Amino acid sequence: MGIMRIGHIDINVLDINVSREYYVNIMGMNITREDSDGTLYLKCWDEWDKYSLILRPSDEATFNRVAYKVKNDSDIDDLKEKIEAYGIETEILPEGTIVECGRVLKFNAPSGHEFNLYAHKTFLGKDVGSTNPRPWPFEGRGIKAHWIDHVLLMCQGPEGVMASTKFFQEVLEFDLAEQVTVGPNGSLQAATWLSRTSTPHDVAFVAGPEIGMHHFAFFLDGWNDILRAADVMAMHNVKIDVTPQRHGITRGETIYFFDPSGHRLETFAGLGYLMQPDMPTITWTEDELWRGIFYHTGQENGAFTTAYTLSAYK
Amino acid sequence: MGIMRIGHIDINVLDINVSREYYVNIMGMNITREDSDGTLYLKCWDEWDKYSLILRPSDEATFNRVAYKVKNDSDIDDLKEKIEAYGIETEILPEGTIVECGRVLKFNAPSGHEFNLYAHKTFLGKDVGSTNPRPWPFEGRGIKAHWIDHVLLMCQGPEGVMASTKFFQEVLEFDLAEQVTVGPNGSLQAATWLSRTSTPHDVAFVAGPEIGMHHFAFFLDGWNDILRAADVMAMHNVKIDVTPQRHGITRGETIYFFDPSGHRLETFAGLGYLMQPDMPTITWTEDELWRGIFYHTGQENGAFTTAYTLSAYK
Amino acid sequence: MGIMRIGHIDINVLDINVSREYYVNIMGMNITREDSDGTLYLKCWDEWDKYSLILRPSDEATFNRVAYKVKNDSDIDDLKEKIEAYGIETEILPEGTIVECGRVLKFNAPSGHEFNLYAHKTFLGKDVGSTNPRPWPFEGRGIKAHWIDHVLLMCQGPEGVMASTKFFQEVLEFDLAEQVTVGPNGSLQAATWLSRTSTPHDVAFVAGPEIGMHHFAFFLDGWNDILRAADVMAMHNVKIDVTPQRHGITRGETIYFFDPSGHRLETFAGLGYLMQPDMPTITWTEDELWRGIFYHTGQENGAFTTAYTLSAYK
Amino acid sequence: MGIMRIGHIDINVLDINVSREYYVNIMGMNITREDSDGTLYLKCWDEWDKYSLILRPSDEATFNRVAYKVKNDSDIDDLKEKIEAYGIETEILPEGTIVECGRVLKFNAPSGHEFNLYAHKTFLGKDVGSTNPRPWPFEGRGIKAHWIDHVLLMCQGPEGVMASTKFFQEVLEFDLAEQVTVGPNGSLQAATWLSRTSTPHDVAFVAGPEIGMHHFAFFLDGWNDILRAADVMAMHNVKIDVTPQRHGITRGETIYFFDPSGHRLETFAGLGYLMQPDMPTITWTEDELWRGIFYHTGQENGAFTTAYTLSAYK
Repeated sequence: MGIMRIGHIDINVLDINVSREYYVNIMGMNITREDSDGTLYLKCWDEWDKYSLILRPSDEATFNRVAYKVKNDSDIDDLKEKIEAYGIETEILPEGTIVECGRVLKFNAPSGHEFNLYAHKTFLGKDVGSTNPRPWPFEGRGIKAHWIDHVLLMCQGPEGVMASTKFFQEVLEFDLAEQVTVGPNGSLQAATWLSRTSTPHDVAFVAGPEIGMHHFAFFLDGWNDILRAADVMAMHNVKIDVTPQRHGITRGETIYFFDPSGHRLETFAGLGYLMQPDMPTITWTEDELWRGIFYHTGQENGAFTTAYTLSAYK
Repeated sequence: MGIMRIGHIDINVLDINVSREYYVNIMGMNITREDSDGTLYLKCWDEWDKYSLILRPSDEATFNRVAYKVKNDSDIDDLKEKIEAYGIETEILPEGTIVECGRVLKFNAPSGHEFNLYAHKTFLGKDVGSTNPRPWPFEGRGIKAHWIDHVLLMCQGPEGVMASTKFFQEVLEFDLAEQVTVGPNGSLQAATWLSRTSTPHDVAFVAGPEIGMHHFAFFLDGWNDILRAADVMAMHNVKIDVTPQRHGITRGETIYFFDPSGHRLETFAGLGYLMQPDMPTITWTEDELWRGIFYHTGQENGAFTTAYTLSAYK
Repeated sequence: MGIMRIGHIDINVLDINVSREYYVNIMGMNITREDSDGTLYLKCWDEWDKYSLILRPSDEATFNRVAYKVKNDSDIDDLKEKIEAYGIETEILPEGTIVECGRVLKFNAPSGHEFNLYAHKTFLGKDVGSTNPRPWPFEGRGIKAHWIDHVLLMCQGPEGVMASTKFFQEVLEFDLAEQVTVGPNGSLQAATWLSRTSTPHDVAFVAGPEIGMHHFAFFLDGWNDILRAADVMAMHNVKIDVTPQRHGITRGETIYFFDPSGHRLETFAGLGYLMQPDMPTITWTEDELWRGIFYHTGQENGAFTTAYTLSAYK
Repeated sequence: MGIMRIGHIDINVLDINVSREYYVNIMGMNITREDSDGTLYLKCWDEWDKYSLILRPSDEATFNRVAYKVKNDSDIDDLKEKIEAYGIETEILPEGTIVECGRVLKFNAPSGHEFNLYAHKTFLGKDVGSTNPRPWPFEGRGIKAHWIDHVLLMCQGPEGVMASTKFFQEVLEFDLAEQVTVGPNGSLQAATWLSRTSTPHDVAFVAGPEIGMHHFAFFLDGWNDILRAADVMAMHNVKIDVTPQRHGITRGETIYFFDPSGHRLETFAGLGYLMQPDMPTITWTEDELWRGIFYHTGQENGAFTTAYTLSAYK
């Protein structure tokens, strides 16, 4: 089986108390663990594992790593072998090294980003339980985000995108849902969207000047939740970069906004389409690139190309 | 990898011309092939393989079989071996036996329903194409169904449900998303929802008096499409059995209605939740059974237990 | 100018504490006054006058009266004269007789229902204020009803409907938005919808066996709020009579349900259409009556004709 | 009674054939009359009078006038007297001077804009008819606009806004729903929203450098229609100025975009709130002005202050 889905995002934030307030009351997450150094672990109401977000107090708002969950513990050994055969060094971190997790396979993708794979994390259950559950928690807070849906990582140029994309397809067995092609005969991938679930993307890569995280996204049900979320953000003076839009790519309904440290976030709504291994990859050509990103205007909007999070370890 | 998703439904209809009109103009499907015996093959705009529905002219409105698509041709051999090891006879139908398909693995599940597995079907592509696609086809018809989402099969009693559920979990590697438990200590499964994609169900089984098909479902994006679909049905005098509802089970937004031959259909909207192999199975207890089916009233509604499609081959 | 809109509904309830809990936590109203005899006065967040609902503790769940607000105090004198000229007795109740209101013009419509007209009621303001207001209150409760939208009164037979309709059109200058016609050549009005605002109805009359109130309605923005409201009702075991539907009449999106005393309530969503004095009256013929009421099925549903509230003073 | 609602907008367009294509296929209007000089008259599906938009072929994309419909022919005489008593010259245009209309009262508001008032226009009926009507026309086109909802007129400075606002309140009996106040102690009105129906505005005035039309708006039901409309616009390369937003003012859901001549248009969705003569006027202070216009960001967006239509007759 191998990788199932995104497990958690690990980032550094500037003011842990401001961040706590933001992710709890506006994003609607729960604090499920707090370390003595101030590190916070949070989960969304519709997630069952102990956390999907780690916020570390820091004087830099940077990206540390992203973790994916594999189905079986043996997948860690299988993937370790495959990744090393591909020429990438790996390391096994013993159980507990990553808080509340079993052993972890650690490596850097060709684009330079650190990835962690794990098979076990402490189980907490959804807020609505698993016996005769309500469809949503009556006592939800803020935008009531369902789960952390995906991360878009910034790579150095199309070369970085293509290197990590090839690795994710060939070694980690992600499927390529969509791509933006540029350059002579569209021979370069400026951005790619890859999937392990049947949603359009569980990870994406985009070319940029530096190694970092462009954004990570919270899932919402649909377009009406997007309006409600934007209203909630306005009520709390959240800095919105791009107001409610349709993505051409993934068909998703979206808002881009920033957390108090300046990390770009997204609310992503809708299934988009049923992604499958045999679905023909969707290609956006260079002249329609912005139609792909922001479908309604087909033009660059906000600080899409200039505001992102640098990787902590360069 | 094994099974990817539902491939097609094969049913018999009473008046092929009335059915054609219905599935084309109200459901919004395209006819992609027509055989000299009147058999029609149809696909939805968001599907890429040649057909997802076979309508055969008949004097009985019955269910023939359902087919699932596997990822690789070799999956057919692997699954053949596993299915036979489980004690179930199988048969390989040579390429072309099932129209436009490669070789097919045919068998009957423990509940008695015929299943087909195939790895290849003629490729047509989505109506919106795969280069700079629109999010939906401007020239859509009727309810503009995206794809055929799942089938709910009726089994003889909880025994039939439990036998097929066990087989789908153990041999076909479906995950059990939800179950209704009845009987002493909830020891019997009256209904089960099983998934291979990351949506809540790709097949479901429910206990009833006979072997047959309870309904199959078309996917729509969300609750607003459900209203629009119900309006379209009303404009065309479609017989609606259960008007727009929330399912407790799957969280889906739904309408139950009938095709001109009396086959029960559903529009199912929303992702519901992200189904994953490690998601705890959701259990509905006997006293909350109807809350699970029809969340708003928690009561039986329409002809849910009495109107279904018999299997053609008993 | 004359009548502006519905002002308040005055009903008797069986258990005032159960009712308080229901209207506050599920409907989302605020208690704005409480009398020593237990009578409760409530308003919705989007209303500015002190109350729109009076709940009186009683051993009967009955309807007392409905009040409409006129624009100017002089309208009371003008309307008194016109109503009496029409042959209907009236009475002026001095300021304060109706709690928090100025003087009131009291009369019984030809159908037998008591109506009150007033020009002044204590002003409180919307929950969101009137300076740089939020579009909705972040701290809303339950279904977050905007306002009480309309009342449907049950009259004795088409004769009762026609008598009150004629009076409301000719004397109170309501416009007839829609009607259901029955009998020989459609010569009888079985139900009528009348408007003073530019929404489809501010009052409606329907023929039945007795004098009473069929239901009163809370306004919600749209179809998504209807789903959310139905979910909230289910979470609180509210007895729903008719799940989310489209009305053919008014185009409204609706749920019918009951309060703890058995009073039928409605959530009504959407503008429907812009009602205007010169809009041609919409007529529903006898054979399409139920398509008018419940558009999707075109059939009777729930206890529409059998569950209603009797008038307290027969 | 006096004025009921907006009757029609009269503008000059650059290429009548391009405009025809645009308003028919994208806005979804019907051509109901065409004059030999190329002038087009159009109505939306949910309007009943013969036209609500006049497009005149021209080499200038300018604004001519806006017409409002009064209830009774005698209102024309009453309003003529009141307007002249206010010190404004008027003229009665004989029946037929304005195509398909009865006699017309013509005058210029203090801001300099020409207004026409009429009581009669040829009746056509809604596309869905008035007997057992469908809630929407199955054969609609493009964004399926319901009706022309309001116009926002640009006046020279707050003085122009205040002069016309006072006149509309005192003489034409519009109610002031909302205002933006600026200057010392908020003593100047930079913009006003005025209502004759029970929707938040039937006309609005905004301060700017010149006399002209800022935009006119088409009504849509709600936020989902806004998404669909923006998708349709993108599919037809319509120039969108401001993508789907919430207005703080009026609570409306909106898109700003341009017609082929450069006239700014809006889709406005939702009732917003029930406007009433006694609703307290909502005030937006200077520091929250942009929160009022674009609620989500609270910042200027697009060409709101720079792209508008000049008046043809200065």
